[in-house]
Amino acid sequence: MKILGIDPGIGITGFGLIETSSRSVARALDFGVITTTMNAPLPGRLKELFESLQEVFDTAKPDVVSVEKLFFSKNITTGIAVAEARGLVLLVAAQRDIPIYEYTPNEIKKTLTGYGSAGKPQMQEMVRVHLNLEKKPKPDDAADALAAAITHSLMDIA
Amino acid sequence: MKILGIDPGIGITGFGLIETSSRSVARALDFGVITTTMNAPLPGRLKELFESLQEVFDTAKPDVVSVEKLFFSKNITTGIAVAEARGLVLLVAAQRDIPIYEYTPNEIKKTLTGYGSAGKPQMQEMVRVHLNLEKKPKPDDAADALAAAITHSLMDIA
Repeated sequence: MKILGIDPGIGITGFGLIETSSRSVARALDFGVITTTMNAPLPGRLKELFESLQEVFDTAKPDVVSVEKLFFSKNITTGIAVAEARGLVLLVAAQRDIPIYEYTPNEIKKTLTGYGSAGKPQMQEMVRVHLNLEKKPKPDDAADALAAAITHSLMDIA
Repeated sequence: MKILGIDPGIGITGFGLIETSSRSVARALDFGVITTTMNAPLPGRLKELFESLQEVFDTAKPDVVSVEKLFFSKNITTGIAVAEARGLVLLVAAQRDIPIYEYTPNEIKKTLTGYGSAGKPQMQEMVRVHLNLEKKPKPDDAADALAAAITHSLMDIA
């Protein structure tokens, strides 16, 4: 099963594609980030993001999408922008009839590290271990996207 | 000039198309609401909304779009959903190269009624008067969309 994790944002959207099978650990097929033109007006950036997301989805051809659920714990203005970006991710998945699952940041941290308040370095190290990578995946947003994908793979095991 | 006002939401999105000219008051060409399937999963509702927005834009052929700017004064969960819907409005406008303007709820109220804390009945009455309609426009979301459009028309007068 191919799981596409997405960490949405207007400026940087991370993505991470993993493949799972019943016989082996998950492996990373691809990961990276989509960026949009800094300081450009928001509508144009959303258009850039939408077009890049379509490319990522059509290249990755995932069976399922896993996205971080949104919380407004930190910054409301950032939160609005993230929600606008996240709406596009849900739209692109729905247009392709790909099921989408959402996990809270705490669920992702707890699934990967065993507790809900793990820091970024620990999370990234666990992403590396889970996917048997030589180095921690970079940049951070790609690692976060992989973490969302791994979370779904672990949740999904029957 | 044709101004399309939009009041975005996941469940109900209001729209209102007005035409302005230098010689007469603005007149309403069309107004109404887009609804999506209640209780359906969010990605599917966003897809419905996106498709309906495209229809509204391609029928209305506006020169400019006016949208209420988002604030999280009331309900954060509702706010996330509104932001996701609003992202689609900005996307559909950007895909058609239509300039988009945003006004805060207070700017809209102040422009239409003269003060920023006007109630809904007053707002709707002023929409009626501005557009020379026989009755207050219904439903509320369509009236709010028309209010956004009227606000832009009054702001835009040089």
